Amino acid sequence: MVGTEVLNMEKGKSAEQLAKEQREVSVSEFFERNRHLLGYDNPTKALLTVVKELVDNSLDSAEDHRVLPRIWVVAKPKGVDRFKIMVKDNGPGMIDKQIPLAFGKLLYGSRFYKLMMTRGQQGLGASGAILYSQLTTGKPTTIISSTADGKTSFYELMIDIKTNKPEIISHQVINDGKIWHGLKIEMEIEGKYIRGERSVLEYLKETAITNPYADITFQGPDGKIEFKRGANKLPKLPKEIKPHPYGIELGILKRMLNITRAKSLLSFLTNDFSRVGKTSAKQICKVSGLNPNLDPHKIENHEAEKLFRAMKKVKLLRPPTDCLSPLEEDLLLKGLQKEINAEFFAAVTRPPSVYRGNPFQVECGIAYGGEIAPEGSVKIMRFSNKVPLLYQSGDCAITKAVATTDWSRYGLKQSKNSVPVGPAIILVHFASVWVPFISESKQALAAYPAIMKEIKLALQELGRKLSHYLAGKRRREYHIKRKKIFERYIPVVAESLSHMTKVNEEKIKIKLEKIAEEKTGVVNEQGDSEEINQSSTQNSE
Amino acid sequence: MVGTEVLNMEKGKSAEQLAKEQREVSVSEFFERNRHLLGYDNPTKALLTVVKELVDNSLDSAEDHRVLPRIWVVAKPKGVDRFKIMVKDNGPGMIDKQIPLAFGKLLYGSRFYKLMMTRGQQGLGASGAILYSQLTTGKPTTIISSTADGKTSFYELMIDIKTNKPEIISHQVINDGKIWHGLKIEMEIEGKYIRGERSVLEYLKETAITNPYADITFQGPDGKIEFKRGANKLPKLPKEIKPHPYGIELGILKRMLNITRAKSLLSFLTNDFSRVGKTSAKQICKVSGLNPNLDPHKIENHEAEKLFRAMKKVKLLRPPTDCLSPLEEDLLLKGLQKEINAEFFAAVTRPPSVYRGNPFQVECGIAYGGEIAPEGSVKIMRFSNKVPLLYQSGDCAITKAVATTDWSRYGLKQSKNSVPVGPAIILVHFASVWVPFISESKQALAAYPAIMKEIKLALQELGRKLSHYLAGKRRREYHIKRKKIFERYIPVVAESLSHMTKVNEEKIKIKLEKIAEEKTGVVNEQGDSEEINQSSTQNSE
Repeated sequence: MVGTEVLNMEKGKSAEQLAKEQREVSVSEFFERNRHLLGYDNPTKALLTVVKELVDNSLDSAEDHRVLPRIWVVAKPKGVDRFKIMVKDNGPGMIDKQIPLAFGKLLYGSRFYKLMMTRGQQGLGASGAILYSQLTTGKPTTIISSTADGKTSFYELMIDIKTNKPEIISHQVINDGKIWHGLKIEMEIEGKYIRGERSVLEYLKETAITNPYADITFQGPDGKIEFKRGANKLPKLPKEIKPHPYGIELGILKRMLNITRAKSLLSFLTNDFSRVGKTSAKQICKVSGLNPNLDPHKIENHEAEKLFRAMKKVKLLRPPTDCLSPLEEDLLLKGLQKEINAEFFAAVTRPPSVYRGNPFQVECGIAYGGEIAPEGSVKIMRFSNKVPLLYQSGDCAITKAVATTDWSRYGLKQSKNSVPVGPAIILVHFASVWVPFISESKQALAAYPAIMKEIKLALQELGRKLSHYLAGKRRREYHIKRKKIFERYIPVVAESLSHMTKVNEEKIKIKLEKIAEEKTGVVNEQGDSEEINQSSTQNSE
Repeated sequence: MVGTEVLNMEKGKSAEQLAKEQREVSVSEFFERNRHLLGYDNPTKALLTVVKELVDNSLDSAEDHRVLPRIWVVAKPKGVDRFKIMVKDNGPGMIDKQIPLAFGKLLYGSRFYKLMMTRGQQGLGASGAILYSQLTTGKPTTIISSTADGKTSFYELMIDIKTNKPEIISHQVINDGKIWHGLKIEMEIEGKYIRGERSVLEYLKETAITNPYADITFQGPDGKIEFKRGANKLPKLPKEIKPHPYGIELGILKRMLNITRAKSLLSFLTNDFSRVGKTSAKQICKVSGLNPNLDPHKIENHEAEKLFRAMKKVKLLRPPTDCLSPLEEDLLLKGLQKEINAEFFAAVTRPPSVYRGNPFQVECGIAYGGEIAPEGSVKIMRFSNKVPLLYQSGDCAITKAVATTDWSRYGLKQSKNSVPVGPAIILVHFASVWVPFISESKQALAAYPAIMKEIKLALQELGRKLSHYLAGKRRREYHIKRKKIFERYIPVVAESLSHMTKVNEEKIKIKLEKIAEEKTGVVNEQGDSEEINQSSTQNSE
């Protein structure tokens, strides 16, 4: 290292030259160049991503405002690989001065800091779409909003890439006296419209299933398609929670110590965390060997580390789960029933559970038979916080859990560790305050053991319901067949008996029919006449 | 949208409340929470990522400075799942005032803006590692550097997460009179040390192969391991290039128009792009219908769009390729030979090619036989800009190209569309100014058709070299076997002939041995004695 290395003939750069070349990269520049990180890898995925980000925002804001969502989506072709996208909602709207920051700046939003179950998390959704729009078409995005105050705001916005700040192209507030609330966004993008899997239509259909209380209208290249509301109640509003000691990292703990308003370590522990009461707080102090009266702002690095270790050792209650807002069985069933034409539906909602200090909840549903194609693998619909996941299916904990559940026990054909085969759609919804996606594009869940376990338990419960239905169905079919055989011979038998006994043939027929009815039994639609079923199953052996 | 929706019983949030909750998220906060985006998913991968980022930086800076890299790496266990990592290099060092920004701020660096082939690209490498260190251990990172000016800088740095700015814990410049240049970084992290695939050792070994002019010493839990320099020349210094019209997007073009120093559209086109001469520039203006004398700063949106379309239509030369710095066959062979014990080596470097306006070049190498395990699939070593890719192998264009090449033609066993089987290591190096990774963690290449084609062509050329060697080897083996059979019977034949002819047995033996020698031929090591081979192959039929 003392300059004795063999130098090459070419002239190298000095530390001074290299220093001069360094500069800051704005977040916008970073994501502009790395737009695949936000889901803008190619025109097909980009069109889906834009619609998804805008619709997810609309659903979040309507739910925040506690109104039943009503959403309009338009995708209008504008020449080769160009689309005008419009999304309009009935959310609370946005106050005029907030609009530029909320849409014209990346990494700006309200959800990043909250431990709460929402669709958006990072403040990159709508602004990312605007970034993509201006990158591919050079045009500004139009935003129109009102908060039911008789005024309407109009903006044309772009993002100043070098500074990551909004660039207002035009702005007007019109005192039109119209009382409405909501937001309308319109942008032009480079995009490709496809049908089938991973399409905008598939995304909207699956969204309609897990948001059955929303009314969605889509006007696209294939005409107008409506996803009508199928339920008139919203799921409960999720609550924001404080971090749980089991879920935080040392760096975060140190920052929390720095910025807390608490005056003592004891009150820091009880105020700034969930599930830490006075007793547990004292115990944490004891295990860590720190004085409960210490000023948290004066805790040094090595002390913070002791505190951190103690927090993981002391036994605490699991985090509260009112931060979660599952659909529950009723809404799940309504969602499935309104969008899928099947003969049987079932749904399961598991109790909340925890991974790495984060509460989560799994629910699942199944639609079987009817118009669902009987050939090929079962279709899996994956959701996180009510948002459909359309990409990276193979890498997702949900797909893995479906494949490693033994469906042959529940009446579906399956090769070992593969997705089962048959006329069914299996839906799995993962709800959490912090969804462990395997990558930035938010399309697949990481297969943490705690998560895999919960998904599999939910699927097994679902499997039992399916199996019960299928057993009933088989029995019904068997009995109908058996009854038909009886009935086929009744006239012949009646005639012979009448000959032998001289009893009226018609009378014998009626009696025989009555016996057939009794013996072959009519199983009701629910397949729950256990006694008859059992005996008939035994008879058939 | 006129407030007629059914409201839920719970009270919703107003636009004002929602506005108050919004705020900016700093880049540091974003990556702290989404650290998996930077490769810090779990302690095992994190240990590898830290070493990789620091070593890649060291190699880049030594090459910039045109010195043969000399790198020391230490990974010292510090309790359960804790490691102290140290990386020291002989690069140019960093000037004192530059150190805090270069390491204490995310998205800061010199490489983001350059179209040039380098390992680092985003300014997230070392600062990302420091972020991870402080998140998991709460400790600052130590940086020591000198630029051969007789002074040494010492820093203890952290990153202020809320502002994404360096937080200087301590700082000293010592006038020690020592003349040395280089940089030393030391940090403590949460990490797990593993052996085998995807380990630090595997990363360093593969790095030693594609950087054979580097000297790397690793002091880890298994003791000291040295990767000695195997070549004394650096690859040529890659040049920075201007963007090629085929590779840019409309949004970027608009920004370039805005900030250009050119006074006319014509000079903008010729000065700010590569491969646009006066003739092509005039043609672009003509096709777009724009006046070549237009002030680029005054070009409006619809005009920029016309210009953009015209740029893609006019026929232009491919971008220059001196921005690439491939290893070339000689260095590739040296790298393979110094780290792998095999009986045969070959390497191929393809001419440069282009995807989406970005120049790229593919080279590959093979090591066969010797100490390489003969069972199981061939090992594939993947590299981009000389950096080993250890994760996401299945998703990578390189793996796909290897699997879809027909290796049975070249002497390796293979099931259709699978990685071939046999005692071989196949290395593929992808060099480009902009590597199309499929995701942020920079571990797999996107399978663009142009890229797949080039990799497959390189592999086919490599396959022919292997096939030639294996054919020679088979012939040699056949001849040795044949010669042995001859030799086995010579004594018996000699004895019988001696009996019959009364000629001295020893004489006959010598003559027979000479004939055997001539007829079964000794093929030389290169397997290139075509005539003998061919005749013997025919004889054997």
